[in-house]
Parts: sequence; structure tokens; C-alpha cells
Amino acid sequence: MLKLTFADQTGRLTDEKLRAEAEKYAPLLAGMKEKMGLDPMSTGWMELEKWAGEDTLSRLESIAGEIRQKADAFVVIGVGGSNNAARSMVKALKRPGNPEIIWAGNTLSAPAMNRMLRSLEGKDFYIDCIAKNFETLEPGAAFRVLRRALREKYGADYPARVIATGTIGSPLEALCQKEGFTFLPFPTDIGGRYTALSNVGLLPAAVAGVDIRKVTGGARKMREAVYSLPPGENPALLYAAARHLLYEAGYRVEMLASFEPAFGWFYKWWIQLFAESEGKEGKGLFPVASAYSEELHSVGQFVQEGSPILFETFLEVGETGEKLSLAPDGVSDGFDYLDGKDYGDLNAAAAEATRTAHSRRLPVLTLSVPRIDEETFGELFAFFQYACVLSSGMLGVNPFDQPGVEAYKRWMFKALGKREWDL
Amino acid sequence: MLKLTFADQTGRLTDEKLRAEAEKYAPLLAGMKEKMGLDPMSTGWMELEKWAGEDTLSRLESIAGEIRQKADAFVVIGVGGSNNAARSMVKALKRPGNPEIIWAGNTLSAPAMNRMLRSLEGKDFYIDCIAKNFETLEPGAAFRVLRRALREKYGADYPARVIATGTIGSPLEALCQKEGFTFLPFPTDIGGRYTALSNVGLLPAAVAGVDIRKVTGGARKMREAVYSLPPGENPALLYAAARHLLYEAGYRVEMLASFEPAFGWFYKWWIQLFAESEGKEGKGLFPVASAYSEELHSVGQFVQEGSPILFETFLEVGETGEKLSLAPDGVSDGFDYLDGKDYGDLNAAAAEATRTAHSRRLPVLTLSVPRIDEETFGELFAFFQYACVLSSGMLGVNPFDQPGVEAYKRWMFKALGKREWDL
Repeated sequence: MLKLTFADQTGRLTDEKLRAEAEKYAPLLAGMKEKMGLDPMSTGWMELEKWAGEDTLSRLESIAGEIRQKADAFVVIGVGGSNNAARSMVKALKRPGNPEIIWAGNTLSAPAMNRMLRSLEGKDFYIDCIAKNFETLEPGAAFRVLRRALREKYGADYPARVIATGTIGSPLEALCQKEGFTFLPFPTDIGGRYTALSNVGLLPAAVAGVDIRKVTGGARKMREAVYSLPPGENPALLYAAARHLLYEAGYRVEMLASFEPAFGWFYKWWIQLFAESEGKEGKGLFPVASAYSEELHSVGQFVQEGSPILFETFLEVGETGEKLSLAPDGVSDGFDYLDGKDYGDLNAAAAEATRTAHSRRLPVLTLSVPRIDEETFGELFAFFQYACVLSSGMLGVNPFDQPGVEAYKRWMFKALGKREWDL
Repeated sequence: MLKLTFADQTGRLTDEKLRAEAEKYAPLLAGMKEKMGLDPMSTGWMELEKWAGEDTLSRLESIAGEIRQKADAFVVIGVGGSNNAARSMVKALKRPGNPEIIWAGNTLSAPAMNRMLRSLEGKDFYIDCIAKNFETLEPGAAFRVLRRALREKYGADYPARVIATGTIGSPLEALCQKEGFTFLPFPTDIGGRYTALSNVGLLPAAVAGVDIRKVTGGARKMREAVYSLPPGENPALLYAAARHLLYEAGYRVEMLASFEPAFGWFYKWWIQLFAESEGKEGKGLFPVASAYSEELHSVGQFVQEGSPILFETFLEVGETGEKLSLAPDGVSDGFDYLDGKDYGDLNAAAAEATRTAHSRRLPVLTLSVPRIDEETFGELFAFFQYACVLSSGMLGVNPFDQPGVEAYKRWMFKALGKREWDL
């Protein structure tokens, strides 16, 4: 189970301060369980049984089973909340022998789209267009281009290879019925960035061979912990309280870092969750991420000595289950101190040393997870979603809207001549 | 040629302010040309003829030619300054039919290293260990593991497939002579993050089919511009001046963003350059990057309405040279306004709309380049390197050292039992 610890020689974060802050916001935790003050059209993710229950999981496993038999590649057409959760699981947990997962609908670049199309040449594939309102430009445009590619390859049979995930009753559902595409519900009462544990996040993961029952199991376990643990031991409340204390102390950037590259896309899911939920009304911690140890060699200098605007949150893995020996090979390379060690030893030493060095300059939080597996990802999704609601509550902002992303869309739709957007 | 423009309705950046700031720092520009006040052991990159002249380019082309004939994969063992420039070119400019470039020596994770080793199975490959001082842990450990893999595959002939790029006179050169590895000089008078245009950055690019003569040609052109244009028209000075004005106005984060995913790794090169050069003495703009339009769907909300700590710098591409039509396919998908348009139209509209919307809230700089090609990358490397020296000068910090990265290394070497690091 996920555990939160911290180290901070600046004195901004102490056990006492953190416990007091958690107690202060205990009513927020109690209220969240009852969904008090939360938009009921945005809290569906708390009801795992509704959107990731037995019926959903069985249907997803059945669809994924067919795709795994009949396809070399599975193209996910989605952007932001419609692909980040799936992509984070696929990056970390994909099992060999399953279809390649290809990401589309996340760019407007012709070179990038053409490269994606070339990567499909000679492959059997399915597509899944994931779009809550089916108005977003990137997935809309990519869906066109990929329908054309499917039709060129499979002729009149192409609709059997098209899935669309959209709102029940939406034009996208009507389109599926008319064209014979498979339709999957996008939860009506969940916003994009909270949809990891629904058809949106789980189908691509299942196609990649991820055990989605274990993912939802991890999420249920975390929900149980968040709902039952007292404020002073509640990881979601403590993490939110720590962030809030540091925000009030003047920090404006939180850097999520791990020494395991498997979290490479999970960072992006986390960044969207916090940036869109908290970044409003002139407030919020700007979320950034760093793949350590690699990026110690780029941002490490700034963290240690640059403008004092950021604190770090480490994602620490107890045991990766993999070994790689550093036995000497007879070449005197000057790295004798590595003889007989394993990569795991090096990575653990580097992580510990980094936390020690950085915590002399800035507050360092650590979220420890036992392994990189399905259960961990389920726990992490639920943990951060609950923590984000609490943290937004402390900040006094609505964790579920994103009014600021409309501005550029208005200008863009106007430029493209979409009628109802005339300004 | 690269062009700098800006839009800012906050009033913090105006033509007048920018021109005045550039004039104020004109002596810095004049001094830089003469290397006044700059550590001579760090300015070798200004002498393109010394480290990327005819002899160097011919030798690199010859080595790359052999590798392209005899290998399916080329493994670059390096981290930070030893791989970011090469990786940014390979990501954007790799020509089909050349060896796959594989990145190692940039992690201490056993799962990541094992995955990298599995990706080499069945492939003929060469390795290039790039390490200025050959003390850094990541490349040192990976070099061991990859020597072992080469020896297992090629037996006693394996040294012919090993290249090492290190300082002349260093233990790494001695090791190459003893073992029969090919040795390439790592410039003695250039620090890691400024080595794009030397053996360090150019060999992997050449193996990937990048025309390295055009890269250095672009850099020479930019150097000529930086050295000859007056302060008010000098792109490097104007960019540095704009950054400095915004830093003094209270901004602490600069976000580099492009609507072309081809710049995906270039961001990392840029981040290291500025984070390590400027992030010291409690100062500096924290450099972050965002792949638009995708990440508009994650950080866009924060940019538009979150804590007012960041400004943006767009990398804009005039013409990608690629087309992808959005012709309708008979399915009434509600995206009629796309009929007859091309992806290039959409991306340009999105970019323009984003700049318009964001510039109402924050200062937005735009660096326009005509194309994504070799010459552009050469220009960009030189442009940002010169701008970084000027910008560091305005901040009053040394652009070439990185004292802050030593702290965690001391703790790490102690933990690993490296003798001279006993604390």
C-alpha cells in the first residue's frame, strides 16, 4: 500500500505542521465521502461499481480478446483525459505478445500523423475513438483519417474494426448505430481527467494485456483507505495538506520524479489532473515531472541552487523484481566500486542520495509503492484523484471544471469557420 | 533564418522596453565575441572550425558509413550533455533505412536496462560511450553491460564495434588504446551541454542519416548573424533581453512549446542548457516544455488561469513540407467545417489561436524557423547557446559551471563505497 513520508531541512514541513493541517481539513475529507459541495455530474469516478463493475470489465475483456486475436495494432484516438491514463498503463505494464498500441488524435501535425499512418502499413488494426463531446478537433480529424485508412484496407467490412467511446445519447452514439461501429459509453458523470477507471482508460490497457481487474482492485483498496483512515494517517489528506502548506509557504512548482522510467507517461496523467483541476483563479502549484536519474543531469542543478520556487515529490518503488549484474569483465574501467553490485543497488543509492541532498535545500515528499504493477496503478489513480479533490478544496477552486481551455478554442474554431463559434 | 517576435497584452514586454534592454546589454554582446570574462576552457564551441571542421566531419562520415553498413542498431551510451543534442536531431531528422539509434547510459533502472538489452536481440550493433570525465555512473555502468553483450555476440572481434568519446589524455583514451576500441576526442574546452556541434552530438546524428555538414552550416550562419547584427536586430541578444525583462518582472518559469512533435527531444536539450547554466545562486527561470496541441489539453488551463508565474516561447515552423487531407468520407461526423482542409491548416489555426488567447494573459515570444531540417537545428543550437551566455551574463551567473549537481553525487558515491568520496 502507498505510503507518504517527507524530508525537509527548511523547516517548512514538520510532523506537527502537517498533522495540524490535516486535522484542520478533516471536515473536507468527511465531506468528500458524502460528495458534499461536489458537482454530481463529476463524481462518477468515486463509484467504481458503476463504471468499472463486473459487467463493464467482462465486456471490455471480451472486446479486448477479439482485438488481441485479430489485430497487430490498436489505435487509440484520443487526447488529454481520453488517453493519458491508458497510455501510462500501457507504457508501464504492457505484456509482450499483445497488439502494439498506437496513439492518434493527439496532434494536428501533418508530419506526426503521416508517421503514425506509415507505422500502420501492413498491420491489421482496430481503432477506438474516445471523445466525450466529440467536438474536440484532434480526435475528430484523426477519426476521419483513420476511417479512410480502415476502409481502404478492409472495404465494406471496416465498421467491425471501429469502436467509439462517447456519451450515451450523443451524436457519436447515433453515428455508431448508423455506421455499424461498436459503441462504448464514456461516463456521463465523469470529466476526462478522472476517467482512468472506466471504458476510457481500461479498454486500451486490456488490449495491451494489462489485468484490468487488478487495476480496479487497487483503486477499490485505495478508496477504502481514503474513506476509513483518520486524518492523521490518511495518505490522500496528508499529501493534499503537505502541498497546501508548501503552496502557502510560497512554492509554486511541484516536481514529480521517479527513478523508474516506467512512470514516463504516468507523469503526464498526473500533470493534467493537477494543472486542470487547480490552475485557475490565479492559483495553483504548477505540476512538472522529471525522469531521474537521467534528468538530474539537466534540471538537478536548478533544483539544488536555482530560484527557490519548487519542491519535489518522489515516486519510490520498493522492488522492481528485475536484476542486472555489474560483474567486472576484465577491462580496467576505473569503476571497480561497482564490482559485484546490481543495477538495483545503484538506483537505490542514487535515489537516496538525491533525496538527502535535495532535502537540505527544499521540501521533499516521497510516495512509496511496493511494486510497479496493476494494483499499484489502480492505487495511484485513486490516490491522486482523491488528493486532488481535497487539495482543490483547500485552495478554494472547483476540481472538475476547466474554463481556461475554452479561450484558445474559440479563436481556433473562428479561424476554421465553425459556425457557432463566430465571435 | 530564425526570427523573434512577441505578443503581450500585459504590457511587461513592449518594443521600446525590449530595444532599451538590448541596448543596455550591447557591451555584453560585444564582449562575448571576444570571449571577455568567459572561461577559456568552456568556449571551444564558439570555434566550429576546431571541433566541427573538415577533418572532424570527414572522419565522422567515414565512421558513420561503416556503422551504417555493418549495423542494425547504434547504441549511444551517454547522459545529459552527452546525448540530448544527438537525440534531438535523431528524433526530428532521422532518415529511413539507417540503423536504429538506441539510448543507454541514461538510467540506473534494471527494468529499463533489461528492456534496452532485449531490444538489441538479433541485431548487429555498435556502441559509442560518450563521457567527458568517465566518472559518471550511468554511462560507466552501461558501458560494462554493453561490452559484455558485444563480447557474447562477437567474441574476440568485439573491440572493432566499440567507440568511446572522451577527453584526450584521459583514462578512457588509455583504455581504448589497450583494448583496441576506436577513440574520438570529447572537446577539452567545451562543457557537456554545449557539445552539440562536435563528435559528441554529430556521430549519432550521422549514423542516423542526418547531413551533419548542413547542421554545422546552419550553426555557422547563426554565429555570423549573432556576431554581426546590431543589438536591436540581434536575435540572440533580443531573446536574452526579453527573458531578462520577464525575469525581473517576476516570472520564474519559461515554457518552450511547439505544435510540431518533431521537437520532442530538442526540448530536453534546451531545458538542460538553461537549467544548468542559469539555475544557481538562487536565480534563474525554470525551463519547462510542452508539446502542443496535445498538452494544451493538460497544462493549457494552468497557462491561461493558474498562478501567474510563467511565460511562453513558441517554436514556430513555417512549412513542414507534408500534407494530409481531411476530405470527407461520407460519414456525417459533425466536422463538416474540416471538409477540404489540410492538417497544416488546422495546426496553423490552433497555433495562432493559442498565441492570441495566451497573450491576453501572459507574455508570448515566438521563434520562427522556416523548416524542420538540418540547417534549422544547427541554427537553433547556436542561437540558444549564444543567447544562454548572454542571458546568464545579465543574471550575473557563470553559464558554464554546475556546482549544484555535485551534492547528490557525493552522497551517492559514499553509499556505493567509492573511496575518494568518503565524506
